[in-house]
Amino acid sequence: METSLGELVARLGGELVGDATIRVRQIASLEAARPGEIAFLSNPKLIAALASSEASAFILSPKAAGLTERARILTPDPYLYFARAAQLFNPPKRPAAGVHPSAVVASALPASVSVAPQAVIGEGCEIGEDCIIGAGCVLGDGVRLGAGSLLHAGVKIYDNCEIGARAIIHSGAVIGADGLGFARDADKHWVKIPQIGRVIIGDDVEIGANTTIDRGALDDTVIGNGVKLDNLIHVAHNCRIGDDSIMAAMAGLAGSTVVGKRVMAGGKAGFSGHLEVADDVTISADTNVTKSIDKAGVYTSMIPLQAHADWVRNFSHLRRLDAMAERLRELEKKLGAKES
Amino acid sequence: METSLGELVARLGGELVGDATIRVRQIASLEAARPGEIAFLSNPKLIAALASSEASAFILSPKAAGLTERARILTPDPYLYFARAAQLFNPPKRPAAGVHPSAVVASALPASVSVAPQAVIGEGCEIGEDCIIGAGCVLGDGVRLGAGSLLHAGVKIYDNCEIGARAIIHSGAVIGADGLGFARDADKHWVKIPQIGRVIIGDDVEIGANTTIDRGALDDTVIGNGVKLDNLIHVAHNCRIGDDSIMAAMAGLAGSTVVGKRVMAGGKAGFSGHLEVADDVTISADTNVTKSIDKAGVYTSMIPLQAHADWVRNFSHLRRLDAMAERLRELEKKLGAKES
Amino acid sequence: METSLGELVARLGGELVGDATIRVRQIASLEAARPGEIAFLSNPKLIAALASSEASAFILSPKAAGLTERARILTPDPYLYFARAAQLFNPPKRPAAGVHPSAVVASALPASVSVAPQAVIGEGCEIGEDCIIGAGCVLGDGVRLGAGSLLHAGVKIYDNCEIGARAIIHSGAVIGADGLGFARDADKHWVKIPQIGRVIIGDDVEIGANTTIDRGALDDTVIGNGVKLDNLIHVAHNCRIGDDSIMAAMAGLAGSTVVGKRVMAGGKAGFSGHLEVADDVTISADTNVTKSIDKAGVYTSMIPLQAHADWVRNFSHLRRLDAMAERLRELEKKLGAKES
Repeated sequence: METSLGELVARLGGELVGDATIRVRQIASLEAARPGEIAFLSNPKLIAALASSEASAFILSPKAAGLTERARILTPDPYLYFARAAQLFNPPKRPAAGVHPSAVVASALPASVSVAPQAVIGEGCEIGEDCIIGAGCVLGDGVRLGAGSLLHAGVKIYDNCEIGARAIIHSGAVIGADGLGFARDADKHWVKIPQIGRVIIGDDVEIGANTTIDRGALDDTVIGNGVKLDNLIHVAHNCRIGDDSIMAAMAGLAGSTVVGKRVMAGGKAGFSGHLEVADDVTISADTNVTKSIDKAGVYTSMIPLQAHADWVRNFSHLRRLDAMAERLRELEKKLGAKES
Repeated sequence: METSLGELVARLGGELVGDATIRVRQIASLEAARPGEIAFLSNPKLIAALASSEASAFILSPKAAGLTERARILTPDPYLYFARAAQLFNPPKRPAAGVHPSAVVASALPASVSVAPQAVIGEGCEIGEDCIIGAGCVLGDGVRLGAGSLLHAGVKIYDNCEIGARAIIHSGAVIGADGLGFARDADKHWVKIPQIGRVIIGDDVEIGANTTIDRGALDDTVIGNGVKLDNLIHVAHNCRIGDDSIMAAMAGLAGSTVVGKRVMAGGKAGFSGHLEVADDVTISADTNVTKSIDKAGVYTSMIPLQAHADWVRNFSHLRRLDAMAERLRELEKKLGAKES
Repeated sequence: METSLGELVARLGGELVGDATIRVRQIASLEAARPGEIAFLSNPKLIAALASSEASAFILSPKAAGLTERARILTPDPYLYFARAAQLFNPPKRPAAGVHPSAVVASALPASVSVAPQAVIGEGCEIGEDCIIGAGCVLGDGVRLGAGSLLHAGVKIYDNCEIGARAIIHSGAVIGADGLGFARDADKHWVKIPQIGRVIIGDDVEIGANTTIDRGALDDTVIGNGVKLDNLIHVAHNCRIGDDSIMAAMAGLAGSTVVGKRVMAGGKAGFSGHLEVADDVTISADTNVTKSIDKAGVYTSMIPLQAHADWVRNFSHLRRLDAMAERLRELEKKLGAKES
């Protein structure tokens, strides 16, 4: 999709400084950009790359307007503008509508839906207009999928789960498997508790590759609108994640965790079950949320890296911290006693 | 499945107090229950919800018998009774027996087996009576699957792996992939060690979505009877997990770990390789088992959550713990010296 | 594959001590070996097992040559020799060449390629000679796969990703899904940044079950030659992993991490994004690489296991470390003051 800077600004806004007829066909980083591409500066560390960039135009903040004489679009948030321009230059691929003859579909579908080879769709499903069902996807019975949703190859959705409009779900994601629900009998065997809740997912949600979201035990597991989950995340039964929250890869939520809106969680963050996290909380990477958090802010429990020998020397004391604290108290007592 | 309280007690035991003809059709939590449903009280915190519950009957411990005048079943373990009643009200869905025409099956199967669309079953497999093979599952050659087992959509089982009766395996689980086995040559390239062991899984095992259990290098990887593994768990080659152990999501076992019976591991628990864990051990969430454990009990190494600023201030000292300990010793010496 | 010790040494090298006509048909551990099998000793702890082993021959280091009178092959690295012998005795299974009629293939393939049932191959793919595409694999459009590569069942490769020769990719791995790339708009909604880079993987790479490698945002994600990745690993967009690096299960790399050659990472190791790790670095299991590492060596940040009660007592002080350090300084000042 090639366009002129004039058309770009007409569509996406921003203030154009320079020749409106310059044509661009792709977005790129300052370093990698070639003529015909437009680059953006959002990280001040990259100012030096601006001068040597081969890009035909730039997306800059008003403050940075004077850093180049070349064609530029000024906008308060160049990174956001970059995202929107990138969408314009790279519209998602749309396979032809229709059901591939190798697919096995037991529900009526709108004519606009595309179903790729080997996909399986059960009975009583409601699939919205313009959905794309990738190769080898399996939808159980009674699945609802909102209009404009995209399932990449090999997504599995269990019976009766509901997903909103414009979802993007990546390969290998599993929506609606049973949660880990068992009671223990007198012989210490585990007795399965049927998981009869569903997974209910809002609009504009993206779910990463091989992420798993379990169905509720009695009630539902609920994912809000605009939530973005990366790869290999686990969401246990009866969790609730608020609108516009985002989690990096390998984050894990134990059962019945309730996460607020706009929560951000770093990679490998973990949430113990049965707790609540307030809106606008940020959890650092590899941090365990071991108790409820009732106030916005950043929370962390990651262990800093050390050379192995330092680690051996320092961390051996972790098993003696209480004794150290006691010795410290003892010294304070002694020293206080001497003084008095 | 609707039943009367009288029939329920006849099937599952317990002491009925109240009208045996009251009919119930589903189990529910105290808060969500509607007329026609039976609720249970296992968590003392929910006693208040008992009075306002709309349930038609309750499952209570004998101690709690006086908390309501309404119809109730008394049983020493209401949570276990709930599990059994939930099974009764929610029998698993059984697709019709037979092989879908799109499936590719190279082994003889009992007539009672159900094979969903796009499934692939290799040569020389032995599939037990009443098994359900979900859509898109792939079983290699020589796979054995015990009677009454259920594979949800997209399970992959490599050649020659064996799974017992009544297994439930969730979507995306991979049984029998190669373990990470390599020798290093003189040029520091990795030379693959063929993984010629199998995975042997006992009866009544449940395996979560996208969990991976690797085949053994020379000998087998062995999962005992009644083991329950949650989602996204990794079991490396040559591990052995004892009967009735249970692990929450994202737990990981390095190679040749031997875990006893009735071991419980929290989410993200990790087991270093080549160690043994005794029966009845409990490992807390996000805890690393870095050495063998020879005694039942609870073990933990999780880092507690902190506000980020507190973490920066406190955890900077982790790299100086040894120096702190040395300074403490120094002070003690000084103070002791003064006293003597 | 049965062979004589003489032939074995002719093919793999080593010094044979004993009868060259002895025949062996499989490799085994010292303990499990039966007559007709050859065992190896690489771990000095197992010397006792040598005497009682039923193996017909042994692979030993020259130093260990005198530990048995029986037939033995002497080689400086018995474990490496074991790997090579194991390959010889256990050649990979080769399904017949050709495309199964249930597969859906939109690209021209060499006649030597084997495509299993239900596989899907898009348009414009270039598949090398002798590749094996497992059941239910899905390759998008424009995928390149080098000669002799093996995709186990259910591997998904997105459009335009490239994989070198002799790859082994295990079931459920996902190559080329979108990275977690979003900008935040003024209303705090997330705006997707199309991920237009690719995944480029070198030769002789092995990728474990359910591992995910995301495509680059603008530039590519790059995996070097000879890299070995275990199961359930996450490689985020724009990472680069150097030749012959190896990572154990559940390791995770955040975006734009650059890892050197011959780096080894233990299970659950985590790499924060936008950092560089030098060649020949070893990261211990469950260790977070929170900053760049510019020197070869071993690095660790794992928390040692404790009995739960000890953990409660000791780790409560982690939230007071800074206060402890301050009290220590205070004591030192006091004591110094007294002395002066």
